[in-house]
Amino acid sequence: MPHDYNQEALELHKTHHGKIELHTKVPMENRDDLSRAYTPGVAEVCKEIARDMGLAREYTLKRNTVAIISDGSAILGLGNLGPHAAIPVMEGKAAILKSFANVDAFPICLDTQDTEEIIKVVKQIAPVFGAVNLEDIAAPRCFEIEERLRRELPIPVMHDDQWGTATVVLGGLINALKVTGRDDRKDVKIVVNGVGSAGVAVSRLLLASGYANIIFCDSKGVIFEERGDEMNKEKKELIAKSAAVIEGTTLTDAVRGADIFIGVSKAGALTKEMAVSMNKEAIVFALANPIPEIMPEVAKEAGVAVIATGRSDFPNQLNNSLIFPGLFKGMLDNNIKQFETEMFVRAAHALASHVKEPTREMILPTMFDKELVNVIAKSVV
Amino acid sequence: MPHDYNQEALELHKTHHGKIELHTKVPMENRDDLSRAYTPGVAEVCKEIARDMGLAREYTLKRNTVAIISDGSAILGLGNLGPHAAIPVMEGKAAILKSFANVDAFPICLDTQDTEEIIKVVKQIAPVFGAVNLEDIAAPRCFEIEERLRRELPIPVMHDDQWGTATVVLGGLINALKVTGRDDRKDVKIVVNGVGSAGVAVSRLLLASGYANIIFCDSKGVIFEERGDEMNKEKKELIAKSAAVIEGTTLTDAVRGADIFIGVSKAGALTKEMAVSMNKEAIVFALANPIPEIMPEVAKEAGVAVIATGRSDFPNQLNNSLIFPGLFKGMLDNNIKQFETEMFVRAAHALASHVKEPTREMILPTMFDKELVNVIAKSVV
Repeated sequence: MPHDYNQEALELHKTHHGKIELHTKVPMENRDDLSRAYTPGVAEVCKEIARDMGLAREYTLKRNTVAIISDGSAILGLGNLGPHAAIPVMEGKAAILKSFANVDAFPICLDTQDTEEIIKVVKQIAPVFGAVNLEDIAAPRCFEIEERLRRELPIPVMHDDQWGTATVVLGGLINALKVTGRDDRKDVKIVVNGVGSAGVAVSRLLLASGYANIIFCDSKGVIFEERGDEMNKEKKELIAKSAAVIEGTTLTDAVRGADIFIGVSKAGALTKEMAVSMNKEAIVFALANPIPEIMPEVAKEAGVAVIATGRSDFPNQLNNSLIFPGLFKGMLDNNIKQFETEMFVRAAHALASHVKEPTREMILPTMFDKELVNVIAKSVV
Repeated sequence: MPHDYNQEALELHKTHHGKIELHTKVPMENRDDLSRAYTPGVAEVCKEIARDMGLAREYTLKRNTVAIISDGSAILGLGNLGPHAAIPVMEGKAAILKSFANVDAFPICLDTQDTEEIIKVVKQIAPVFGAVNLEDIAAPRCFEIEERLRRELPIPVMHDDQWGTATVVLGGLINALKVTGRDDRKDVKIVVNGVGSAGVAVSRLLLASGYANIIFCDSKGVIFEERGDEMNKEKKELIAKSAAVIEGTTLTDAVRGADIFIGVSKAGALTKEMAVSMNKEAIVFALANPIPEIMPEVAKEAGVAVIATGRSDFPNQLNNSLIFPGLFKGMLDNNIKQFETEMFVRAAHALASHVKEPTREMILPTMFDKELVNVIAKSVV
């Protein structure tokens, strides 16, 4: 069993009252200092920005500051706990951005879960921010919100649950295929189980990278057009783009003979029997948190060649924190206007290449690798 | 002439890219640290807050964090320059709150100037904040916004341009009357010139403190009911509450024989001749920025006993920074639900009393007085 961090986490949060605070980065000791940082001197800075809005990037915190925005509707694996309960996660992301990429970030937890209202409020508070990280917003509204904000805001917008996850999965997959001696993207048979925010983005990124043989499953089994139930447009888009041949309606059917299983679903979804039925040298990414779709030791017993999870207490942790600090740093430092799918593909390759000799037990670097953030930041340019 | 800080201010802002940044206040060095600050431990913190929303105050930054909110419609004395140009001022306030009161604050500059939209967006982003400081929002919308937010939000809301200014003015007035040997609040004749956000709040606070003989002037002269032009409800309320006898329609008429002139209007509004016409031992607060209603040396020549301005390069600077850091610290530390007028009255008396021996050249302490913030913070309880 993993170490139980619950009590320690409560104590840490209670002792410090959260995890982030503001600091001043200019002297504020005397009247002269204040005359430069505040009135009267600040008026000149305001007038300059009024003349050219773009100068906000030069003269203010905007240049290096990300809004971390959640409506509290899909907090970790805990569900819809509301905006107050979301604060500790958003503060945690801000702490990671600062510690790993020296990017400033501030958590904004919204007291609304309406798609149009979320889009509106993010646009209204955007002037002070250099980028937006959407976080823990439930599917399918997260898709519409991200898409619209990317179109309607002049700063980069990324839903990390989608693209952070997708980029790490693609990076992990590149090296997992390498260590198992395969690299034919068109032919490997992939099953993606779970088509929420992470599942859809993982699938989109795999399709954009040339992986064509993908079967998608949700809680009802294999997704195919003739299934006849209502399907959101994301599911329709995915099955339209896949070249997979559907030969059964259950997850068990789908997994049989598959090379790769990517689970962004729920605890225990992949049984030992199902893992045994996969192709030889199978790759399993079991990302349900905190309990994965299959435990690593069980997957190994079933003959799986590479098993990765979202957990820090097993080898091969696939963790968004490998990616999002570098992505935001790259976007802000280079004043890039918007995220695009190719950037995530490039970041995934940079992540994979950063491990000089990947092994079955170490397909990716750890997030404490000090060079990683710059490697990812450079990859977006 | 005062030192020209314009170029130095531009350089300072450009070098540092603004004035505030985020810091982490918990260790983020290794996997154990992250397991407490982020997943998996953070999930337990989220669940606790979901059970009892009030625990956000214990477990997150909410307890000590103020939203500094502007729509950029009335930036300093510069007018409506929009939200981007407002950022340097809001960052400056955040830097002051941190430096003087160890209160964390984050600037939110809104891309809307519609009263209802501003109210809505502030409510929507409120969960992460412990208090709201409205700033540089034009009158009269600032009154409605503050009033509604105080009623509709569970956290304290204060428009500093109103109440910070009003509290400093009242504190200064208490000591100015003391050093000129008067203290009869009902009898002193006061002229308030300018009834924008600051003028209205100053007047309201004076009326609430027992000053009854107040004449209000705007750009058209003395305000009285029979004047016949459209008048907003704040002006109507003020004249209804004053016991002053109106004996003329111009500012010149109003000032004749007055004991006190409070200008929150524009450069040069009080001429030397008008100052000469005031009562003996006259008190003049000339708060227009950067050029006051009357220059201190001219006021002195006219026989004014106490002259105060908003400027740091003259004696008797009446500066909101004397007040708002302590007020917010007091509200947050004591978990007080909402600002009330009596708190500002108490804070003004605390401010005045903090000067053991006020003189005509020093009616108030300076903002660099290290004890002041705690004196003000204690006064609100």
